[in-house]
Parts: sequence; C-alpha cells; structure tokens
Amino acid sequence: MTDTDLLRDLEAIVGADYVLREAEDNERYTRDWPGRYSGQAAAVVRPGSVDEVSTIMALASKRHIGVVPQSGNTSLCGGGIPDQSGDNIVLSLNRLNRIRDIQIDARVATVESGVILQQLQDALADHRLMFPLDFGAKGSCMIGGNLSTNAGGSNVLRYGNTRDLCLGLEVVMPDGRIMNLLTSLHKDNTGYDLKDLFIGAEGTLGIITAATLTLVPLPAVRHTAFLSVASPNAALQVLNRVQDDCADLVDAFEIMTRESVDVICRYCEGVNPPFDEPVDYAVLVQVASATPDDTLGERFEQTLATLYENGIVLDAVIASSETQRAAMWKLRESALEGNVGAGPAVRADISFPLDQIQTFADSMERELASIAPQAIPRYIGHLGDGNLHYAIALGPDRYWDDALAEQVEQRLLSTVVACRGSISAEHGIGSTKVEQLAQFKDPVALQVMQSIKHALDPLGIMNPGKMLRSSPAG
Amino acid sequence: MTDTDLLRDLEAIVGADYVLREAEDNERYTRDWPGRYSGQAAAVVRPGSVDEVSTIMALASKRHIGVVPQSGNTSLCGGGIPDQSGDNIVLSLNRLNRIRDIQIDARVATVESGVILQQLQDALADHRLMFPLDFGAKGSCMIGGNLSTNAGGSNVLRYGNTRDLCLGLEVVMPDGRIMNLLTSLHKDNTGYDLKDLFIGAEGTLGIITAATLTLVPLPAVRHTAFLSVASPNAALQVLNRVQDDCADLVDAFEIMTRESVDVICRYCEGVNPPFDEPVDYAVLVQVASATPDDTLGERFEQTLATLYENGIVLDAVIASSETQRAAMWKLRESALEGNVGAGPAVRADISFPLDQIQTFADSMERELASIAPQAIPRYIGHLGDGNLHYAIALGPDRYWDDALAEQVEQRLLSTVVACRGSISAEHGIGSTKVEQLAQFKDPVALQVMQSIKHALDPLGIMNPGKMLRSSPAG
Repeated sequence: MTDTDLLRDLEAIVGADYVLREAEDNERYTRDWPGRYSGQAAAVVRPGSVDEVSTIMALASKRHIGVVPQSGNTSLCGGGIPDQSGDNIVLSLNRLNRIRDIQIDARVATVESGVILQQLQDALADHRLMFPLDFGAKGSCMIGGNLSTNAGGSNVLRYGNTRDLCLGLEVVMPDGRIMNLLTSLHKDNTGYDLKDLFIGAEGTLGIITAATLTLVPLPAVRHTAFLSVASPNAALQVLNRVQDDCADLVDAFEIMTRESVDVICRYCEGVNPPFDEPVDYAVLVQVASATPDDTLGERFEQTLATLYENGIVLDAVIASSETQRAAMWKLRESALEGNVGAGPAVRADISFPLDQIQTFADSMERELASIAPQAIPRYIGHLGDGNLHYAIALGPDRYWDDALAEQVEQRLLSTVVACRGSISAEHGIGSTKVEQLAQFKDPVALQVMQSIKHALDPLGIMNPGKMLRSSPAG
Repeated sequence: MTDTDLLRDLEAIVGADYVLREAEDNERYTRDWPGRYSGQAAAVVRPGSVDEVSTIMALASKRHIGVVPQSGNTSLCGGGIPDQSGDNIVLSLNRLNRIRDIQIDARVATVESGVILQQLQDALADHRLMFPLDFGAKGSCMIGGNLSTNAGGSNVLRYGNTRDLCLGLEVVMPDGRIMNLLTSLHKDNTGYDLKDLFIGAEGTLGIITAATLTLVPLPAVRHTAFLSVASPNAALQVLNRVQDDCADLVDAFEIMTRESVDVICRYCEGVNPPFDEPVDYAVLVQVASATPDDTLGERFEQTLATLYENGIVLDAVIASSETQRAAMWKLRESALEGNVGAGPAVRADISFPLDQIQTFADSMERELASIAPQAIPRYIGHLGDGNLHYAIALGPDRYWDDALAEQVEQRLLSTVVACRGSISAEHGIGSTKVEQLAQFKDPVALQVMQSIKHALDPLGIMNPGKMLRSSPAG
C-alpha cells in the first residue's frame, strides 16, 4: 500500500523524523485506547507549524488523499482513527502544542490544537485563572479535539460547552488555505458564524490549528457534597433549589446510579463509595465562586439541610477538606474506566429535556424487561444538562450476544427519540453513529449538512466516512 | 413592473388580503424608519403559516424571484429593505406571531418570528420569567429579526447575544424545504451547528420562522446606578471591581460620553441628565439577582463607596426607587432617537478587545484633529462587551460634506482594524456594510461564506445584495 512518492513529498514538508510509515510506529495513531477502533494509514504525518499543515493539505488535495486529523486520540466514537483501506493519512497535531498567548486582564488565551487540556490549566493556574472545561480525559485530550467534538464535561451547566468557551479559530481548509478567525472580541457580527460551524465538525470540513479561548478566575471558594436521593426527579428538585438559593453558582451536578457507583468502585483502584451503604442515586454537587463570599457555604449547607428535612435529600456528605473533595471527584472521573472495566455493554451518550429524564429511565426499564430481562442498565449523568452516559450490560458475568445488543440498541435509540432526546449529547458522531445520524436526524438538516460538506470539501478528503456517509470523492 | 402571474400565484397561496401590490400599501415595508433606505417591491406578501412560507419559497425558486425577509423592520443597516429594481418581493413575517409554547419549568419558549420582543416579555412576566434580550427597539422589533441579526443590547455582558439565547430553530430553505431544528436540549452534538449558521445570516440563507429560546427568572433584586468617571479605562476598572465583588451579577454596564448625554437630553422628550453638572463619562451599571439576596445591595454600595474613596468613581447616583431606575434606563434607551435627532453623522457599530477601547478613542481624536478639526465625536457603549456606538458629527449646526464624510469613515474603519476591532459588532452588515465587509474580512473567510451561500442558495434569491455582494443568479 505504500506510496513512496507521497511519503517523499510529506518528508519534504515536515522532515523525515515526522513521517511515520511503519505500522508499529503508527499504532498509537491508528487505534484508540479502548481498543474499539483500529485502522490502517498510508502514513502518519506530524507537522510542526500551521504552514506545514497548509502545505500538507494542498498536497492531499492535489492528490485526492484522505486526511484524518487527530490530536489527543481520546475520541469515544472513533473520530480520529483511519479506516481499514490504508489509503488515508493521519495528520497528528501533537507537535502544534504552543500556548501562543495568555492575556491575563482580558482573560483570553490563544493556544494551538496540540496543547493538552491539563497543560493549559497548569499554565493558567499561575495566573489564578482556568479554562472552564473539565472531564476525566483532561490529562491526555487536546484542545483541537475538544473543539472538533464540541466537548462537554462537568462544568457545562455553568459555563457551557467548548463552543461557548471559544471566541476565535484558525483553520486550515481542505485545499490548504489558512482562514484566520482568531479574535478575542465578544461581539462580532461580520458575516456567517464560521467559528461555530468548524467547532463540532469533527475534522470533516477543515483542520482547526489554534483557538482563542475564554478564561475565568479560579474559584476562591468551593463547596462539594455527595447526596443520596430517591429518583432523578428528586435530584432535579435539588438542583433547582440549590440554583435558586446559591445565585446560579452551581458548577457541577452529576447523578450516578447504584450500579454505576458499584462498577466504578469495583474496577478502579483507590476509589471509595460515597456512603457506607449503597444508595439508589448518588448526586455530586458543587457550588463555587470567584468572589470570596463567606455566606455561600452557609447558604449551601442551609439549603441541603432544608432539603433533608423535607425528605428530598435522604443523606448527605459535605467535603470538609481538599482531600475529601478530590476523593469525591475521583469517583466521578473514574466513571469511564470503571465502565470499560465492567466489560461489554450497549453504550449511549444521550440528552433530554430535563423533565424527560425520569420518563426515559422508566421507559427503558420497561423496554428491557420485555426484550432483555437479564440486562442491567446503569448510568451517570450531567443531570443539569440533561445528559446521561447510559450503559446496558446484557446480563451478569459479562454476558454478550451481538443480535441482542443490536436489538437493545435500536430500542434504546427509539426510546431516546420518543422522549425528544438526542442520540449524541457530547461525544459526537465519529464512526460509531454515522448510521444512527442518518436514521434520526431531520432529513432536511442532513441534506443541508451534505451541501455544506460538499461546498467546503468538494473532494471529500477531510476525515472521510466520519459523521456523514462518504460521498464519492471527486 | 407588475407581474400579474406572480401576484395571482401569491394570492392563491396566502389570500388576496395578504398580497400588497400598490406602492402606498407597501411603503411601511419598503422603507426603514430613519428614512435612510427606500426600495421597490414587486409585491409584499404576508404568509400566515410556515407552510405558506414554504410554498412561497418554492414558487420564488421556480421563478428565480428574489425574496427579502422582513419582521419588525427595525434594521439599522437596511437589512430588510428591497433594492430599487422592483424585481424582488418582500416576505413579511408579521403574521407569524404566535407564542407556540412556554415551558415554565424547563424555562424555554417556542415562538414564531413575527412575535414582538416586548409581547414575549409581557407573556413571560406572568410566569416571573424573562427572555434576556433588551434594547431600545423592543416595542417594535421582532424575534425573527433579532435572530437574523444576532441582536445584542444591554444584557449581553451577562447573558450573551441572541445566538447564546436560542436553543433551536425552524427554517424554510430557499427552495421551500422546511428544516426542523427546534429543540430544547442544552447539549446536542449531532452534526454541524446549523442553528448558529442561520442565526446572524440576515436572511441570506433561508427564512427563520420559529425558535426555541432560553428564559431566565425575573430578577428578585436589582440595583442600578449612574457613575461619573474620568475615562473609559477608569470605567473598566470599575467594571472589574464590581464583577469581582458582586459574583458576576452585573447585568449591564453602559458608558456614555458628555456629548452623547447632551444630544439625548436635547432631542428626546422627558429625558434628564444623570448629574446636575455635565460629566465627561457617565456609566450606567446594574446588578441583579434572581435569588433574594439582601447582601447584594450592600456589597454593591460598598464597592462603589470604595471606588469613590480611591478616586476612580468621581460621583455616583444610586436609584432609590423603581421610578428613578426607569428614568436612568430611559436616558440610555433614548440614545438612538437622540442621535438621529442630532442630524447627520458618520456612524459606526464597532467592538474591541476591552483594553483597546481607550486606545481607539484616543487615536480617533488624533485622526479627526488632522483631517476634520471641526468634527465632534460622541459615543455610547456596551462597555462590558467592548462595543461602541460611535458617531461623528462633521461640525456644528448639522454641517455635512459627503467627501469629508467618506474620508472620515475610511479613517474610522482603518483605526478600528488597527485596534483589532470589528466593523460590525451587533447591527450586522445589511446593505450598509457590504463593501466594508469585502474590504476588511479575512479573504478566506469571505470565500468560505460565498461557498456556503452558493451551496444553500444556488439561485441567489435570498435577500439579494445583503451581506455579500450579489453573485449572478443561476
């Protein structure tokens, strides 16, 4: 499959050290960490500058070669993994890892796509600032992938998705043109909103090489608790009450079912359950303020006390030290590891109008009782965003059956749609959900997406087969 | 110019009452209220449903007729006014004026494009909710235009632009297809961000017929003050301090120069200056909370007192009644009327990184001293967003000179760009700034915009000549 002309041309652009051609060198770029996706690449190329990215794309365009952009390779949907053909190249952004600029007073930073999320947080902490995006993969995921998937996480309730946290972009188009949309303006109505089109496009329209991001002050005070509640609806009552009493200072509001806590504690080291006895629904709630407000802690405790007296909160543990707080978050952030450890499952990243969460959970239990009575559902959710990470083990002892899994997944998706939900809340489409998107998205919206794809990437070389079904390349 | 077949076809769709063909009937639809733009229309058609909009667009597509969508006709850039050709039709959305749905618990409303902003606020007030978009034209502007221009206003600092306040859209495409992107989900990563592409597209890609909007609780407490400060930079110091002390509860932070306050008080009835003696820079600041927090007022007053002691705030008036608060806002909201009353001026709606505002104002004074020493600049700004509404009277007594105006405008725009600013912060491009956009926008971004326009509106029938230079229709 090796095309020596192509390799020579790529080496001429980035230097021989940064073109990986042997499968063993490529492996970390051609398979994902859960081992779900594995592909072949004609080469892995690692440009060191935006100009090199541009030259590579001009070459790829000229030769009609598919390009799979990749940054931290932490996609849960195979978004950065090439297909089996071996015809495409992986373009890794991991050498574009400069923090170009931190403007402390204006509270914005311009960073390249290969910057690791945690690396940015570390650089900002010196200035008492943070980039308000936070989730388990922060130690390895990169800004480029965060943007390309419009990543969510635990702070969305207060600060929004990645899209909401980005003011401007630098993008290399499929033919190599460099589009400069970098700006730190909060208002700019000069034409179509191209920034938000490229954010969340999963590398199918162009390559994001840098972004200007919004920063916020590090919290001066932070109060964190685990609560036990009887149902998702009870949890929502708690959320509304805490929001009202604490002036919208709720950072995070995460729900975990008994089964989820169980698999996390079982399969992750050093993680302890929040309560001595298992509870049906555990809620992790955190309020925070950059203003040193000594009444916030009081208001938070008072609100929880009232909810306990009213029987809505059944039990509560408030973190009384940074160590306790960290332990609470470790439980939450180990969710993915625990879930993978627990073995095969039908998995979904779904979202709902808040009032539909309980309805969905109840409906799903009924559906499973009829088609897969041995199945064990479990979920963790960013409840304030209506977002559940829902997994269904088909039976005890890692039982698996492809046909049953397929049937369960279809029932799951149709139940999501019946509850006015989304089949992809924050993980994106990647390879995993291309057919689901084709099945469930508004048909006109799909046509409009295809029109845009064809207009901006007429040769179909950008991340082929991801998000949209491949159309024949030109 | 009358095309009787066209009129008959339109009447067959919406009924004879809703097709206006005589120029005198059309006038309120073919000229804007400041009298700056006036055009000709083959007809004005007023559909009563989304299906009628769809049928009209299918007809317009078939016959290659340009369509100018219009809602409240309050554009400041001629965005909703047809050109002089008389070949295009105006499609008014003012009969699509239903509030389809208010979900009180979920805090979302689905409304049609012809709903007047104030009409929505009135309906929400019964539920102690509001849609956090607010500006002077609220009594006549409509949601469709708010969305199509991504309107800003006085609450952007806290709640964002219209784009940030909209969860979902219903759009009729140029060929009549209806795209249903209506959703109340806070997280939905299923494909390209089409919603944000149509918001701010000024009717050049399709017609927004309805939207799902985010609501917030009405404030339980609100504290409003006028401050006198010595400079824009001093005002920014005040803003940062109030934000820090009041936990990001600042709703509005507006700056007005001495000359702006002067023209507003002179040309608007019932408006009084904020201080007994004129001040160089007056700042209107408001903090608010939905949580009945009796410490907020104290903190606000204490912060202002400290800033006064430090000499950063030179004088302050805090509203002590709802009447006083309303009088303060009346001054601010009369700005446009005062500016129009003051006569011809070179006007700009511009935005900057916050640290560039003072630099820009100083540079502009130097520029004017050299090319137009008689000129009098004045501005009002949403300072927290870096957005200035900047006007330059060319001299006393309504002096005007076209050539000088042209020269001053070019100097103004190049100074904006030199200060890393935007030539259109919140009013959009419309007819007014098509050439400016072509001159100052990143050239690749312009090409990408043209590609998208061509892909979604291949016949070029959507709001021809607005935003982008017309390309030859197919």
